[in-house]
Amino acid sequence: MNVGILGGGQLGRMLALAGHALGIRTLVLENSAECPAVNVTDVLVGAFENRGDLERIAAASTVVTYEFENVPIEAARYLAQRVSVCPPPQALECAQDRLIEKTTFQSLGIPTPQFADVDSIDGLREAVARIGLPAVLKTRRLGYDGKGQRVLRAPGDVDVAWAALRRAHDLGRVCAFDREVAIIAVRSRDGSHAFYPLVETRQEGGILHTAIAPEPRWSQALQTNAETYAMRLLDHLDYVGVLALELFEHNGGLLGNEFAPRVHNSGHWTIEGAETSQFENHLRAILGLPLGSTAAIGHVGMVNLIGTLPPISAILAIPHARVHLYGKRERSGRKLGHVTVRAENGAELIVRLDRVIAVVKEAERAAEIAD
Amino acid sequence: MNVGILGGGQLGRMLALAGHALGIRTLVLENSAECPAVNVTDVLVGAFENRGDLERIAAASTVVTYEFENVPIEAARYLAQRVSVCPPPQALECAQDRLIEKTTFQSLGIPTPQFADVDSIDGLREAVARIGLPAVLKTRRLGYDGKGQRVLRAPGDVDVAWAALRRAHDLGRVCAFDREVAIIAVRSRDGSHAFYPLVETRQEGGILHTAIAPEPRWSQALQTNAETYAMRLLDHLDYVGVLALELFEHNGGLLGNEFAPRVHNSGHWTIEGAETSQFENHLRAILGLPLGSTAAIGHVGMVNLIGTLPPISAILAIPHARVHLYGKRERSGRKLGHVTVRAENGAELIVRLDRVIAVVKEAERAAEIAD
Repeated sequence: MNVGILGGGQLGRMLALAGHALGIRTLVLENSAECPAVNVTDVLVGAFENRGDLERIAAASTVVTYEFENVPIEAARYLAQRVSVCPPPQALECAQDRLIEKTTFQSLGIPTPQFADVDSIDGLREAVARIGLPAVLKTRRLGYDGKGQRVLRAPGDVDVAWAALRRAHDLGRVCAFDREVAIIAVRSRDGSHAFYPLVETRQEGGILHTAIAPEPRWSQALQTNAETYAMRLLDHLDYVGVLALELFEHNGGLLGNEFAPRVHNSGHWTIEGAETSQFENHLRAILGLPLGSTAAIGHVGMVNLIGTLPPISAILAIPHARVHLYGKRERSGRKLGHVTVRAENGAELIVRLDRVIAVVKEAERAAEIAD
Repeated sequence: MNVGILGGGQLGRMLALAGHALGIRTLVLENSAECPAVNVTDVLVGAFENRGDLERIAAASTVVTYEFENVPIEAARYLAQRVSVCPPPQALECAQDRLIEKTTFQSLGIPTPQFADVDSIDGLREAVARIGLPAVLKTRRLGYDGKGQRVLRAPGDVDVAWAALRRAHDLGRVCAFDREVAIIAVRSRDGSHAFYPLVETRQEGGILHTAIAPEPRWSQALQTNAETYAMRLLDHLDYVGVLALELFEHNGGLLGNEFAPRVHNSGHWTIEGAETSQFENHLRAILGLPLGSTAAIGHVGMVNLIGTLPPISAILAIPHARVHLYGKRERSGRKLGHVTVRAENGAELIVRLDRVIAVVKEAERAAEIAD
């Protein structure tokens, strides 16, 4: 079983690592040999735009998948003529454009926050007046990890946000919410599917910082609600693989924010915290193997290591903490690794998670002082 | 952090995989590029007897370790003059000779089964008459996985066993026991140490077939007894790393059988079944990092895949089964992979484990018929 992976970042790396146990050979296509995947699997240094490179990975693979949603759609379609591509290119296409994504949500009966298609400063002012603050202005395409987005908290933020994003943005989307949760779904080639427990995600500066699973206010009703929405997306897209649906909880209900047609940062907790990790289940799904149990094992928290790494020994000294480093150099805003901590109950988890966060924050402060 | 590993079999492979998460670069020295480690880390194809190869791995490593105990002692000592070698060469030396090993156990107050130093057929007959049957005749050096040993059940087995082993054997050891358990211990550079819960191991044809942790008749008294014995070994050998102590339970007490100065098959269950795997804790220990929790997560069973592989989809269809393949070709008696299954209680575990064993046995029977 050979799996081609477009992209050799940390998600490609963790897919490759999950593949080793199952005897799956992976080959990553990435434009740099310095990528996180390089020490854990074979890397073909090349470009998604180069048909020769695409043909090489197609020829070497039973199935091709991707680790990020900004793979050029042309590359995905070109590959799909030669080899099985999972998730299907239409899922990529839908996820790449926030307006298409939102329209799809609405067509499937997945409520979304109020949003507006904004293409001028006047349009933005009018949308803010109608929808209210706080609000988020995002580019329509190619935004990720807080890049290509601005939070508007006060009327004075409008001009600043517009000035920062106008060159790149197509759509301004404006919303308000209480908190964020995500559901990781997986669907196999034969249509069998499974869902992980809802995870609460906490962002800082637009980047996921902490995830808690099952989410602390978990209820069967909310879980079923989220699963219903995710299932509609899976069916609509004829989806195969792992899909992450990010949701806002707003007044006790769920609103669709965005989805990622891939393994996702909000599912990293599944490596230690679920019976089967999202990475393994993604590989099982795209290869048509039986899916593994998505049950959580106790209560799990995950903290991203962003921009700077704490001393690894300080993290490992925290009982039950597990570290995942991605082999990247430190750089502001960059995801360098993550820490997972597990506990038998929610109260114990919070204590352990707070210790992890304290060590991570201390390293972040030290790095700021050093700058 | 760079770790050199002597040997690139499945243990080297799983050490390398555990290292990736911690940002540890591993380099394996192995005599074939076809080894299980080859797809998961860098492999230096060379020989333990070649000083140039040893110098290369020493130069590339912060610390050198090994994945099997039959590394030539000269190689370990040569390396130790150049780089930190863990576990220390004296642990290798002790484990390589069954007579020295047994004598060490006795000197540390670790009881052993009755044994005899046998170097002739007459000596073997006399020892069998004195000690009784069933009994095991083993070579003094270089035996593993049932190789270099014969079980004697009836007086007629004596001549056959002697004929099979006489060229290679130095010591005949003869014992009787009720069942086998093992304790995985880990000791760090600063002397801190930890023990995993006792695991019951079941052999077939001298090869580990099934392991259950915590062992089904687990008691704190037995655990403490095993930890006491393991601690004496760790201290005596000034040990750093993971050590597996295999024990016979006999009339409710424990007898030392043998120890392995390395990660061990009876600890594979720790990947999914313990807070920190034996592989990660071995790396933490030899690098002087804080040890991780050795607590079991529920109840765990492990089944080796020996000689032939069942269809992977048949294994993955068993709820909660996790597969680890080593990338080896099928061959009689060869360890090709293992399956782990976890449950919240012992009764549930037995049900799940029986399903795994049934699938594995069916594949073994099918392979026998095909032969």
